[in-house]
Amino acid sequence: MTIEVVRIGQRLVRDDRVTTHAALVSRAFGASRIYMNETNSEILQVIDGMNKSWGGSFEVALEDNLKDIIRQKKDSGYMIVHLTMYGYALHDYLKFNTVPEKILIVIGASKVPREIYSMADYNVSVGLQPHSEIAALAVFLDRIQCGEQFKREFPGASKRIIPSRTGKCVSDL
Amino acid sequence: MTIEVVRIGQRLVRDDRVTTHAALVSRAFGASRIYMNETNSEILQVIDGMNKSWGGSFEVALEDNLKDIIRQKKDSGYMIVHLTMYGYALHDYLKFNTVPEKILIVIGASKVPREIYSMADYNVSVGLQPHSEIAALAVFLDRIQCGEQFKREFPGASKRIIPSRTGKCVSDL
Repeated sequence: MTIEVVRIGQRLVRDDRVTTHAALVSRAFGASRIYMNETNSEILQVIDGMNKSWGGSFEVALEDNLKDIIRQKKDSGYMIVHLTMYGYALHDYLKFNTVPEKILIVIGASKVPREIYSMADYNVSVGLQPHSEIAALAVFLDRIQCGEQFKREFPGASKRIIPSRTGKCVSDL
Repeated sequence: MTIEVVRIGQRLVRDDRVTTHAALVSRAFGASRIYMNETNSEILQVIDGMNKSWGGSFEVALEDNLKDIIRQKKDSGYMIVHLTMYGYALHDYLKFNTVPEKILIVIGASKVPREIYSMADYNVSVGLQPHSEIAALAVFLDRIQCGEQFKREFPGASKRIIPSRTGKCVSDL
């Protein structure tokens, strides 16, 4: 399964930490790439450091025209899912769809242009109250993979977490 | 089921938006209150506006000593769950526990003091890679409630979302 993420509408500085969280969650839950159209150096440094320590080759891709990216992905067979509190309920989405081989997940920071709703194959929500695009992304990725993020390999890691009920346990590789 | 959240270690300004997301996610997924020890006026305004428009009486509680809050809750029968990437895997937590009547969920922003790991009944993780406390909170609340956030009532709302596959649909109440 190939998972990619597009983040639209972020506001520099104000949204910097949230954008970093969006990238971290994408990586941790199995996406290979996040597209955005501007960024701050923090995100690139953080992700680079994560890949070196914890493995994998997750990528932050900067693109001027994110609508073009969505169109290109749609043309090459990706299911486009836009996460929004106004969308189709997650349990209905899961009931009526098999999880696709290739999926592009669109998340918005501020107001999302109307056109994105039309471009998406599905507008999907994880709840009926205002929440957070980070929450939506995490819950959606957890549910479509049935928790498989725990089994995912991150090649090249220099350390690995050993789950522990009472404390921190990290092994060097 | 009573759900409350404690957020520790946030850094003012740098973490303001993420802290707002933590409060929004707590509210949207059924918590009644979030404790923190300092805040910015944005969060209080945002939450106040949410309650007025979308209902419910979610509360941001400012407390100087959050460890005391954790101790008090533990003494009054709450299960204390600290969400951390180093913790016990979520699927194991769910396999071996019935969901308690009262739960206090602790999330950290920056480094969490060692003592919190010992105070918690469980340290629980939603994945084995660095991610985001917002993601952890959302996935944990979604899973322990089996998606019941969609059915939760928010009394006093002036509007309500009608889920839609293709666009935005909001009804006035």
